[in-house]
Amino acid sequence: MTSHSPIVTLVTDFGTKDSFVGTLKGVIWSICPSAHIADICHEIPPRNVLAGALMLGRAYPFFPRGSVHLAVVDPGVGTSRRPVALRFDGHLFVGPDNGLFTAVLKKAAEQGKPLEIISLDNEKNFLPKVSSTFHGRDLFAPVAAHLANGVPLAKLGPSISDLQCLSLPEPEKTINGWHAHITVIDIFGNCTTDLLAEYLTDRTEVIFRVKGYDVHGLVTSYGHAQPGELIALVNSENLIEIAVANGSASELLGARAGDLVEVVE
Amino acid sequence: MTSHSPIVTLVTDFGTKDSFVGTLKGVIWSICPSAHIADICHEIPPRNVLAGALMLGRAYPFFPRGSVHLAVVDPGVGTSRRPVALRFDGHLFVGPDNGLFTAVLKKAAEQGKPLEIISLDNEKNFLPKVSSTFHGRDLFAPVAAHLANGVPLAKLGPSISDLQCLSLPEPEKTINGWHAHITVIDIFGNCTTDLLAEYLTDRTEVIFRVKGYDVHGLVTSYGHAQPGELIALVNSENLIEIAVANGSASELLGARAGDLVEVVE
Amino acid sequence: MTSHSPIVTLVTDFGTKDSFVGTLKGVIWSICPSAHIADICHEIPPRNVLAGALMLGRAYPFFPRGSVHLAVVDPGVGTSRRPVALRFDGHLFVGPDNGLFTAVLKKAAEQGKPLEIISLDNEKNFLPKVSSTFHGRDLFAPVAAHLANGVPLAKLGPSISDLQCLSLPEPEKTINGWHAHITVIDIFGNCTTDLLAEYLTDRTEVIFRVKGYDVHGLVTSYGHAQPGELIALVNSENLIEIAVANGSASELLGARAGDLVEVVE
Repeated sequence: MTSHSPIVTLVTDFGTKDSFVGTLKGVIWSICPSAHIADICHEIPPRNVLAGALMLGRAYPFFPRGSVHLAVVDPGVGTSRRPVALRFDGHLFVGPDNGLFTAVLKKAAEQGKPLEIISLDNEKNFLPKVSSTFHGRDLFAPVAAHLANGVPLAKLGPSISDLQCLSLPEPEKTINGWHAHITVIDIFGNCTTDLLAEYLTDRTEVIFRVKGYDVHGLVTSYGHAQPGELIALVNSENLIEIAVANGSASELLGARAGDLVEVVE
Repeated sequence: MTSHSPIVTLVTDFGTKDSFVGTLKGVIWSICPSAHIADICHEIPPRNVLAGALMLGRAYPFFPRGSVHLAVVDPGVGTSRRPVALRFDGHLFVGPDNGLFTAVLKKAAEQGKPLEIISLDNEKNFLPKVSSTFHGRDLFAPVAAHLANGVPLAKLGPSISDLQCLSLPEPEKTINGWHAHITVIDIFGNCTTDLLAEYLTDRTEVIFRVKGYDVHGLVTSYGHAQPGELIALVNSENLIEIAVANGSASELLGARAGDLVEVVE
Repeated sequence: MTSHSPIVTLVTDFGTKDSFVGTLKGVIWSICPSAHIADICHEIPPRNVLAGALMLGRAYPFFPRGSVHLAVVDPGVGTSRRPVALRFDGHLFVGPDNGLFTAVLKKAAEQGKPLEIISLDNEKNFLPKVSSTFHGRDLFAPVAAHLANGVPLAKLGPSISDLQCLSLPEPEKTINGWHAHITVIDIFGNCTTDLLAEYLTDRTEVIFRVKGYDVHGLVTSYGHAQPGELIALVNSENLIEIAVANGSASELLGARAGDLVEVVE
């Protein structure tokens, strides 16, 4: 039986110093006691829906199909923004309709695979008393747990066809290359950009111009450069990344999310 | 069988940079391999028993009955303070008798439901060697795991009737309202007070006076105000909360736990 | 069946603000859906292999035999450093061969128990596409999950006999005592040293000289001293620890890992 434990993942801006995340787990296990619960990330900057959308888009594909992904970055809690559930490529998603599922929508559009969207109108699946300020606990966690229990999507509410969508960072083609942007800075100070490696026509003569520095060509991995050297490489998501061997590129460059990386081919 | 996986929750001041929490989980799974373990919070400020008691009281009711709640904020480890276990309302609690169960005691008193307390005298349930400085690992985690395995409370030691109790923050009635206090500041900067919403007789004319600011009346949720506006609302625990729409009330006010909120009706 | 859920533990320098750890869990559950996954620590300082080795050595013995310990502090990812798996004393270990298993090797040498080491050459157990920069996800997590599923070590690659080894901090004997060193500073500011308690011949007259302070003799636990008092005690790993009752020794002393503690007997 254990081999069929359903999986519920969590992406929130709740942090870990409060009891919010623990409470979500209590509610989920009260309804679906066999669930494996995975914290993907609780350190989305407060109310930063775009950061939550990017995080969810990066992490969910590595979970098995059938997983339920509960995402709560919800500054509009208690207003008219709709609670929704989605199914795409065998994965289920639950959260507020505020753009948090933008990366999922984009993937559906790119891959041309079907996407089901449900407006969570059926209050039978919520906690008995729904507060105005914590729908993660009272509404989204119970719905995620019911989905983990195998409740069909159709029982949760009516099908809808539109969903809020944010504009994701995208590189722009220039005469001699690309204007790419730093999108995520990880704990090592590595700066991921929005430029997919396959967009490059030349991987040796290419120059990455960022914050006044020029990086020539690509290396295979961090250990293929001298410690302290500023390098560019294809990262594990197939995106161009600016890094410092054995160091922090974000510190060296003073880089921040949104900064321009000029790619000259 | 998975549907009967016992649940063990953790509230500690151990942080997450050391191996303490991992060690607790290893000990629990060595004794009760089927347990689901939920981190409620490991960021209780070091040795702050009151903060641990408030955290435990807020989170445990959302877990299913039968859960075992392991709480370790234990500055008196290795001294004569007693190790104890409690059963209340179907929930089990394990930890040091230093006030950490104050919120549970208070709930028991309010609800008039039975509360069992056991002094953990039976060393058979501890690790073979008990250190003087880490009873979380050597004593409380093993006992919690045995309880999760279904060992009856009575086998752990003799029944006792008294327990250390801290004074919890409480609002005081004034001539024209209340003196409430900020009790918890969450990651968003929202300032929870100790005033239950039902204590208010008027929810529109009421004024909340805090750190030199006046807040008039209550709003339904964060999104029902202009970004940056200082607001008051009934939070998800039915307590009055001071917040800033799309911002941080604690930053705007320079507020800290314990600060006065004058409520004028 | 739940009683046989395999355990996979994680020690990494990935932090918790990125999706790396969530991704590992997704990969593990995709291959071994019944695994219990325990975060031991994700806050190893970036690329600090020695700190990772010490953390792993401290925590793994408290998990049940049969656990799989996945350790990823891997600055040489994508270079020629070998991916390896080990079995020692019923525990399984997976990670890069860069010194991360030094504490395990040391224990094997001390205890004279057999140690098996495998070079992970069999790519059948990796994800289909292995990146150059995230072997934790593409190689180590899948191998750990296969081990958790019961795949025999011998199927993962050829047996090898040597492994990278770092020098661990060790106390030096002096004419009248020891030169010990602070190795780990925990969240409470307690300073663990590398001196085992049994190395002391005298526990009452002994003096610990650290950062200009003298501490006389040992106390049993933190609560056996006046608040604010600088004390020495035998900690839960049987090592000498410098602490401040109800306070932070590292703050009082301005102490850091590596600092000398002169022990005069």
